[in-house]
Amino acid sequence: MSAPINRQIVLAARPVGNPTESDLRVVEREVPVPGDGEILIRNLFISLDPYNRIMMGNANSDAVAIDIGQTMTGATVAVVEESKNADFAVGDHVVSMLSGWQEYAVSGGWDLRKIDPEQAPPSVSLGVLGHTGLTAWVGLTEIVDPKPGGTLVVTAAAGAVGSAAVQIGRLRGHRVVGVAGGQEKSRYLLDVLGVDAAVDYKATDFAEQLARAVPDGIDTVFENVGAFMLEALLPHLNLNAQIVVSGIMSQITATVPPAGPDRVPDLLRAVLYQTLTIRGFALPDYLGSFPKFIAEVGPWVADGRVKYTEDIVDGFEAIPSAFIKIFEGRALGKVIAKIA
Amino acid sequence: MSAPINRQIVLAARPVGNPTESDLRVVEREVPVPGDGEILIRNLFISLDPYNRIMMGNANSDAVAIDIGQTMTGATVAVVEESKNADFAVGDHVVSMLSGWQEYAVSGGWDLRKIDPEQAPPSVSLGVLGHTGLTAWVGLTEIVDPKPGGTLVVTAAAGAVGSAAVQIGRLRGHRVVGVAGGQEKSRYLLDVLGVDAAVDYKATDFAEQLARAVPDGIDTVFENVGAFMLEALLPHLNLNAQIVVSGIMSQITATVPPAGPDRVPDLLRAVLYQTLTIRGFALPDYLGSFPKFIAEVGPWVADGRVKYTEDIVDGFEAIPSAFIKIFEGRALGKVIAKIA
Repeated sequence: MSAPINRQIVLAARPVGNPTESDLRVVEREVPVPGDGEILIRNLFISLDPYNRIMMGNANSDAVAIDIGQTMTGATVAVVEESKNADFAVGDHVVSMLSGWQEYAVSGGWDLRKIDPEQAPPSVSLGVLGHTGLTAWVGLTEIVDPKPGGTLVVTAAAGAVGSAAVQIGRLRGHRVVGVAGGQEKSRYLLDVLGVDAAVDYKATDFAEQLARAVPDGIDTVFENVGAFMLEALLPHLNLNAQIVVSGIMSQITATVPPAGPDRVPDLLRAVLYQTLTIRGFALPDYLGSFPKFIAEVGPWVADGRVKYTEDIVDGFEAIPSAFIKIFEGRALGKVIAKIA
Repeated sequence: MSAPINRQIVLAARPVGNPTESDLRVVEREVPVPGDGEILIRNLFISLDPYNRIMMGNANSDAVAIDIGQTMTGATVAVVEESKNADFAVGDHVVSMLSGWQEYAVSGGWDLRKIDPEQAPPSVSLGVLGHTGLTAWVGLTEIVDPKPGGTLVVTAAAGAVGSAAVQIGRLRGHRVVGVAGGQEKSRYLLDVLGVDAAVDYKATDFAEQLARAVPDGIDTVFENVGAFMLEALLPHLNLNAQIVVSGIMSQITATVPPAGPDRVPDLLRAVLYQTLTIRGFALPDYLGSFPKFIAEVGPWVADGRVKYTEDIVDGFEAIPSAFIKIFEGRALGKVIAKIA
């Protein structure tokens, strides 16, 4: 009898710009064996996130990329197959932050969080009730602290984090404007997520759409795009506006430096005269906020006030193409691969 | 007997770039007469600040400029000449936030703060123990909250606000690096203000001087310069670095847009991956902090731990040329005109 096989997706080449299928490769290895205190998990769902692109390298980031040949990192929902750790039993469902793009993984347990698959579809623990929703919630509560009633602009608003931020913002009493690319996403923002206004940044009248959408200016920006997008929002920022930088999607796949003139002076002028606050954050620093996040957002998801859209692809083989479409603007909501 | 004369300096033309003498004009008007509840003050010292340039217009700011023909605004130290307000007596020394560049002014009293000319030279109330010192203190305490022991970089460090920020930072336990233009200012920073390292941004080896001055990176920036300066500091910023934007001296007199490429993406990348905080502030929002500021900084000035350099010019006629030299980098410390 041959040893059981663990399929993995590894980094084959560092992408230039958008990732392509040839940057990834499927390899087959033996299923690892847990040691004392360890748990063997079998992944059921794999989360595909913009952050994965950063970890591939050449991504205009300061993050240390994974090595060529290394398994792609990322969060999964899994079931415990074998346990030598008293905290986990065979059959437990867990979220793993570190298992990555493979069928099996061994964990020491500290990155696992048990979930009840009867309470909500397990995939949700990777999206609106997982690190995705937590990112949106932390950004709008612990990084900046906007007063209800003001205008909140969320960019990449139809993406996984953006669509959570839009709805959390709405339920916290803000007037919410979602910016996304294409008419289909604008309709999604208006009809499904219930934004007060939607702006299509790919439209030729983007500037006019934006101006009409924020007649009272902008008090808070939840920024996922960066570069040209923040520059477009700049003239509309109100006094004491707060900008949380959660992502810079448009920048991580850029291959040429942006054209001049340099807009840093414009930005600093706004910082000074509009007394802006601009803050970045890294989710790993805020994992301790998970209980507070779940206490507020959990009931909203349970009773349908926060909706979530999942773009679930089927099968391990579907991962590369599903991942790539995130960067081509063809994904709506949270992209997840169901592999078992 | 002719009516007493009040000389005023009014805005004659909006400057293009650096201000020139022809942008200002001396006019003679009658000394105003205080009404019920009002006070007539005679100005003794007039504060000359970079902010005055912004109020002249064409200054790449969003501030509403004064009108052509209007008296230049600004803080003064004055003596009460006539009082119809029970809170002020003839002979009282006061700081006025609003009297502006003229010999006499009438005040309703709310912008006046009494000072004791025996306790410290009255001019100090315009500098290190006035709005100048308060700007430095608020920036380093209420806008950002740096931990002692880290590296603080102050730009335009030999200027009035900068030299206060340098010393407050040092006494609050930071390693302080001052950036200024020219060797003379570097020596002043090292020998008089006691910085840990001085960097001459006009030197051909500015980048190397900066790198040597911050071997452990930068934790806090007190920014007075903007544009190229912040861009030069960017690669040295540590994780969680905080940037307080107190001024953008290099930008307010700029007459052409900066060359490309656009560095906003670089800045946002740093915001995200270094989890930066960038904040601007406006001093009028923090005047209530004056007592806390004086409680901490007052004793430091009294016992000589905080030094101040005043560039005091003599006579009302000297105001325009003294003001102009601030923008030519020829001022050291606080520029004040002694007019009586």
